[in-house]
Amino acid sequence: MDYRPDLDKLPTYSVDEREWDIKLDANESNLNLPPLVQERLMNRLAFLAFNRYPEMGMNHLKEQIAHNFKLTSEQVLIGNGSSEILEKLFHALGGPGRSIVFPTPSFSMYQIYAKLTESKPVPVLLEEDYSLDPEKMLAAAKQSAAKLIVLCTPNNPTGNAMSQEDIERIVTQADCPVVVDEAYVEFYGQTAVGLLNKYPNVMIARTFSKAYGFASARIGYLLAAADLVKMVGKVCMPYHVNALSLAGAEVVFQMRDEFIPSIQQTVAERERLTTALKALPGMIVYPSVTNFLLIKLAKATELANFLADKGVGIRDFSQASGLEGCLRMTVGTPAENDAVLSMITDFMERG
Amino acid sequence: MDYRPDLDKLPTYSVDEREWDIKLDANESNLNLPPLVQERLMNRLAFLAFNRYPEMGMNHLKEQIAHNFKLTSEQVLIGNGSSEILEKLFHALGGPGRSIVFPTPSFSMYQIYAKLTESKPVPVLLEEDYSLDPEKMLAAAKQSAAKLIVLCTPNNPTGNAMSQEDIERIVTQADCPVVVDEAYVEFYGQTAVGLLNKYPNVMIARTFSKAYGFASARIGYLLAAADLVKMVGKVCMPYHVNALSLAGAEVVFQMRDEFIPSIQQTVAERERLTTALKALPGMIVYPSVTNFLLIKLAKATELANFLADKGVGIRDFSQASGLEGCLRMTVGTPAENDAVLSMITDFMERG
Repeated sequence: MDYRPDLDKLPTYSVDEREWDIKLDANESNLNLPPLVQERLMNRLAFLAFNRYPEMGMNHLKEQIAHNFKLTSEQVLIGNGSSEILEKLFHALGGPGRSIVFPTPSFSMYQIYAKLTESKPVPVLLEEDYSLDPEKMLAAAKQSAAKLIVLCTPNNPTGNAMSQEDIERIVTQADCPVVVDEAYVEFYGQTAVGLLNKYPNVMIARTFSKAYGFASARIGYLLAAADLVKMVGKVCMPYHVNALSLAGAEVVFQMRDEFIPSIQQTVAERERLTTALKALPGMIVYPSVTNFLLIKLAKATELANFLADKGVGIRDFSQASGLEGCLRMTVGTPAENDAVLSMITDFMERG
Repeated sequence: MDYRPDLDKLPTYSVDEREWDIKLDANESNLNLPPLVQERLMNRLAFLAFNRYPEMGMNHLKEQIAHNFKLTSEQVLIGNGSSEILEKLFHALGGPGRSIVFPTPSFSMYQIYAKLTESKPVPVLLEEDYSLDPEKMLAAAKQSAAKLIVLCTPNNPTGNAMSQEDIERIVTQADCPVVVDEAYVEFYGQTAVGLLNKYPNVMIARTFSKAYGFASARIGYLLAAADLVKMVGKVCMPYHVNALSLAGAEVVFQMRDEFIPSIQQTVAERERLTTALKALPGMIVYPSVTNFLLIKLAKATELANFLADKGVGIRDFSQASGLEGCLRMTVGTPAENDAVLSMITDFMERG
């Protein structure tokens, strides 16, 4: 078969799909939807016309989101997770010979989106402490005549966030659109949304898959100037988002206050875990404002395997460039964290 | 903003989203899921881990489908409707300077998929009676060194099907993969699936959106040789299909026999409508093996507007190239068809 050139070189995003007793490898919420939300969701679905195509404009959800951020519906784009949003953004602004600048280590899909859309990937290395130097980012963008800059804050898998000043500096100095991937923002509390009405080149990508415990549905959204939303919308398929997920997302967004307790619990548990893990000799714990922790130790893969044998799944990044010796673990429920902490303590004490 | 070249020229697929009393414009099933199917679906969803990402391999649904067609799971690709399947196929096999051959008039998205993937669209004109001349298709493919041939049978919006001999002739003579879009096959009963084990270059695209009354969920699939499935899968995003739709599709596919009565009713109603409409002076009704009819008359747009005023939505193709004077109407429920037939008769008798 004669495929598009370089298709065989395209990396395949792979995930170890084992059935874990304690699943801490995908930064999902470890609690299902709050019972009240789930009840309302099931009621909505019971009245869905399953035989009909989704409402193409997705106006109900767009209006809800727009109203929350004091924007207009024309400034909101809905997609199959922020994944689709970002892929389409890379497609609309990238392409052959066109550069896209993003940080590394960060979300591994940026590299894949760039290749998939035949754009030129320009990764910018984070500092030793995983902070991002805005001047380096701007220099890389200038040098490569970038068509899009991606910021990921809080950053996955390092867990830290950029300062608002640094984000604003990049937005104002850049000659191209800047998208801020805020997948983990609810665990941090500081957003760049305020920049939307000041600068036409800033965009915010959000997801329902983390704090809102709705990863099953694959719903994400982009907040941006109306013309950017319109042009990115052009490369989305008609009816690309299904009606079951859309109806669910409307319920989840409307009832988002119901998620505050679990977000607060995750934040408290993150701090508890950080303190406890830091106390273990030989363990580095990076400061996190997300729902996960990045840890570093000499026997990283051994620890991941040790946990896997006990039915606990975490993400081993120890072979990834810039993340040598690192593991990423989602903050679970208090009981899950107790169990994992005791296993890790056990492992570290054995030496 | 500096967008990817030609993005502004990309056509936007638009649909008139009015709330119709009788909706005959999108070839959906006009009945919701059979009550037994819906009950089972709601039971499945009630136990879904909404907080978890979908199962990435989609193995349950793939195995069910593979088993039904006596294929292996590696020969099945699941997507967000056959739309995503076809878009990704165009992407994997097309690209700059690479031709994709498809019939016209046919599903209008083929042209858009070609542009979106920067492939060279090569439309092949159907004959006066909307049949496809296989020699013309093969000649166009040869001349343009096509990387993919698309067949749509039964064809939308013309309603007719190709003979198995013509399909096989194209598959065996072509130097490239051939995808047969069988979106409406259940209303026809003859499939090209049998060619799959004979020829490595044939592929079949199917959807849950028509006969299986599940357009809300956006589920479609491709049947093809394992290497084609693997390569097309490379350009699909991880977790591109959501877990709600997947769980629903598993129930629908498992219970597909429950849809036989409504398919049979649609076929019977199609024949009844055809006979009744043909009897009206000035009305041409094209023979259909689908769940819709293509009709042709002098005052096409006037009829569409007349019906719209009465709350009936049908699709006006009268300004489309090769479809001058044509309207497409979905076969509805018996009561809906009675109502619409009476309105059309009224309109035609007024002259």
